[in-house]
Amino acid sequence: MTEQAALDLADKGLDDSLNRLFDLLRIPSISTQPDHAPDCRKAAEWLVKELGEIGFEASTRETPGHPMVVAHAKGPEGSPHVLFYGHYDVQPVDPLNLWTSAPFEPVLVKGPTGEMEITARGAADDKGQVMTFVEACRALRAADGTLPLSVTMLIEGEEESGGVNLMPFLKANRNELKADVALICDTGMLGRGMPAITTMLRGMVGEEVTITCANRDLHSGMYGNAARNPIQLLCDILSDLRDGATGRVTLQGFYEGVPVIPEETRALWRKIGPTDADGLAPVGLSLPAGEIGYTALEQTWCRPSCEINGISGGYEDKGFKTVLPSKAMAKVSFRLVGNQNPEAIRAAFRAHVETRLPADCKAEFTAHGGSRASIVSADMPFLPPALKALEEEWQHPAAVIGCGGSIPVVTEVQEALGMDSLLIGFGLEDDRVHSPNEKYDLSCFHKGMRSWIRVLYALAAQNKH
Amino acid sequence: MTEQAALDLADKGLDDSLNRLFDLLRIPSISTQPDHAPDCRKAAEWLVKELGEIGFEASTRETPGHPMVVAHAKGPEGSPHVLFYGHYDVQPVDPLNLWTSAPFEPVLVKGPTGEMEITARGAADDKGQVMTFVEACRALRAADGTLPLSVTMLIEGEEESGGVNLMPFLKANRNELKADVALICDTGMLGRGMPAITTMLRGMVGEEVTITCANRDLHSGMYGNAARNPIQLLCDILSDLRDGATGRVTLQGFYEGVPVIPEETRALWRKIGPTDADGLAPVGLSLPAGEIGYTALEQTWCRPSCEINGISGGYEDKGFKTVLPSKAMAKVSFRLVGNQNPEAIRAAFRAHVETRLPADCKAEFTAHGGSRASIVSADMPFLPPALKALEEEWQHPAAVIGCGGSIPVVTEVQEALGMDSLLIGFGLEDDRVHSPNEKYDLSCFHKGMRSWIRVLYALAAQNKH
Repeated sequence: MTEQAALDLADKGLDDSLNRLFDLLRIPSISTQPDHAPDCRKAAEWLVKELGEIGFEASTRETPGHPMVVAHAKGPEGSPHVLFYGHYDVQPVDPLNLWTSAPFEPVLVKGPTGEMEITARGAADDKGQVMTFVEACRALRAADGTLPLSVTMLIEGEEESGGVNLMPFLKANRNELKADVALICDTGMLGRGMPAITTMLRGMVGEEVTITCANRDLHSGMYGNAARNPIQLLCDILSDLRDGATGRVTLQGFYEGVPVIPEETRALWRKIGPTDADGLAPVGLSLPAGEIGYTALEQTWCRPSCEINGISGGYEDKGFKTVLPSKAMAKVSFRLVGNQNPEAIRAAFRAHVETRLPADCKAEFTAHGGSRASIVSADMPFLPPALKALEEEWQHPAAVIGCGGSIPVVTEVQEALGMDSLLIGFGLEDDRVHSPNEKYDLSCFHKGMRSWIRVLYALAAQNKH
Repeated sequence: MTEQAALDLADKGLDDSLNRLFDLLRIPSISTQPDHAPDCRKAAEWLVKELGEIGFEASTRETPGHPMVVAHAKGPEGSPHVLFYGHYDVQPVDPLNLWTSAPFEPVLVKGPTGEMEITARGAADDKGQVMTFVEACRALRAADGTLPLSVTMLIEGEEESGGVNLMPFLKANRNELKADVALICDTGMLGRGMPAITTMLRGMVGEEVTITCANRDLHSGMYGNAARNPIQLLCDILSDLRDGATGRVTLQGFYEGVPVIPEETRALWRKIGPTDADGLAPVGLSLPAGEIGYTALEQTWCRPSCEINGISGGYEDKGFKTVLPSKAMAKVSFRLVGNQNPEAIRAAFRAHVETRLPADCKAEFTAHGGSRASIVSADMPFLPPALKALEEEWQHPAAVIGCGGSIPVVTEVQEALGMDSLLIGFGLEDDRVHSPNEKYDLSCFHKGMRSWIRVLYALAAQNKH
């Protein structure tokens, strides 16, 4: 049967598939750094070329930011139509000195787990994952001369930088992008060899605040005590974001819309998930932070969070400078669940800062994206066949799980196109996503490709509804 | 009389004096930045050359850090012997973009006060002040062929970087450096045209702390809530350094040895000093921070402080990165008064951090200098004639004041050489010391020179005791 033929071709072509992934990984498409804009465009054009070669009608589409990649390939008459989503942009690479190999010179090395690892920025998030689908389509087409169903691909370049241009693009191109279901490949598995489909995703609100006190940097000896210190003020404000005793976020109305997790779900998770100590051990920690009364897994899967992602002020170099600075800056993000309202929380954060500001100091805010949490309903018709296909490939039951990360596109696809999404990804906890030495297991790349071949056949067998 | 002759020569030679100061200001002798070590040496050698040309027996002396400049000139038999202290090193210049002219290309410009201002890093702290004394000696020598008393000069290169090598150097060269009184030119006046001698100086303890939680940077979505955030932890720890209600520093035993200021002194200061609003207006503030119940002036002159001089962690660049960092760093300094013990306070700070650290996180500390506060006794014999000399030059009563800054050398000269110090300086509140666009009024430089001529004659008239 042709499914087996496609799987065999995927195995035989693995080296070529890997070389193509390496080509894409060599492009430093860091979307948040303006000077890398040309690299983002280069990555988009590379994808258009590759997709064109495997029979997609592909093109780049301009946006106010980095271009989108859109591609279409028709399947048999009456077959379902899927919209695949991924992103070609990557996170910044600092601190560079912690990388064991250059972030944009991908290498294949044997990792501590004994697995061969593709090491490069974007290996797992999200270029490696995108390429599992591209290469699956390549194998399917080589085996059958066509795809088992109609596929539209949308690959954006601003997932790591707020992605403000996605929603307008989805709305403006609703008719072209509408399909029966969206397939989003930007998530992980439950563990090595344990496939999963993510049905719960946290939303996010990103905020940057800069506090200004004196009109210039001062001598801390001459002014220490008398002139307000913006770093001290910022620390007070940020420290107040969480209740020290309970670990709960203190923002007004923060927990409105946060769902209560059924006891049976919590029990199941405690069964399949790692203990707090085991879950934190890989990153060198043992005690869960955050809210009292929830496991580390619950806190990332289904509880909202508040994190300080960056802080800066005064003299940060070697040595010491007795400066009392004029300004201090922090970047803060909130992960949202259930029906928490991003803009209400942004407003609550700004109010939290303003109410703690002395009359002679000021705060300036910059919004860095906001998205609601999203939940894929368990009775969605494409879910069972997809789970079954994954189980066949991995020879392990496929679980339905949550994810601490935010993938705004799920909500946006729902709002703009009225479509559900299946979140199928092959990342692992230890992929060092957003960190130095990001990697993607070669086996995840290989079996990911094979998984998509099985999933696409399984979905093709579904009747359109 | 020769005093008048020397004053006239100082007036006539002002342009040449200014050119020599500009030569010194062009040397970027930033002691805290290792790559500027050669510049520090260059500044030291420049001073040795200049002092040699006006009859001093001058040389550089090696230390484990930057070299010292030591120079001697004998006065008449039986005349008093003074030790002059200053420093040739300067603070870093960041943020560079806020400078209106290059920090090491001195310019003379008319300032907002209408005064001509010498603008450059080090113009006031401390090269400009050092040169008022050097040029005074030049004029005295030109007028009399000799100095009215014996002068030893000690000009160090590590005042802005902890100065750990000064004390050992003083002890090792006790016999050579011992004199009747030390003259230290690194302080300011009470206000424009209002001369002062500083008799109260705060000490300082500098500490750097780095908090490490996870063993690498994490994705704040994947780990947010569950993994400890070192920035959050650092903010909590730093926020706890002050009591929010009273503004008092919370360190165990911090206020031990802090003297109570007599009510009459406080009353006098309220009379001669600016109001809180007036004192803070030049830096764009109106409300005093720090301890409740003390004026801004009292808080800087006679109350201990705690300031955060720098903080850093996570993603600080443009845009946003959803990172949960592994480390966060802060630089903290405490200004000490009375008999506060620097090492006891350093230990209390480290204990404050350690007790707030979860078992799976760690803190690393770096000490950045420590010195006791110092007080010059009001009945010191050289004080009255010096005050009188200043009053004659400025035609305004010379006040005895406190200073928020720390000049460890005062304590060290007392401990190592058993000598009192007279702190005579000509800096002003608005000199932007340690900040962009540091300046020194041309009139302060000129009248500072003239002041030293008068002071040296006045001290020469004192009988040795």
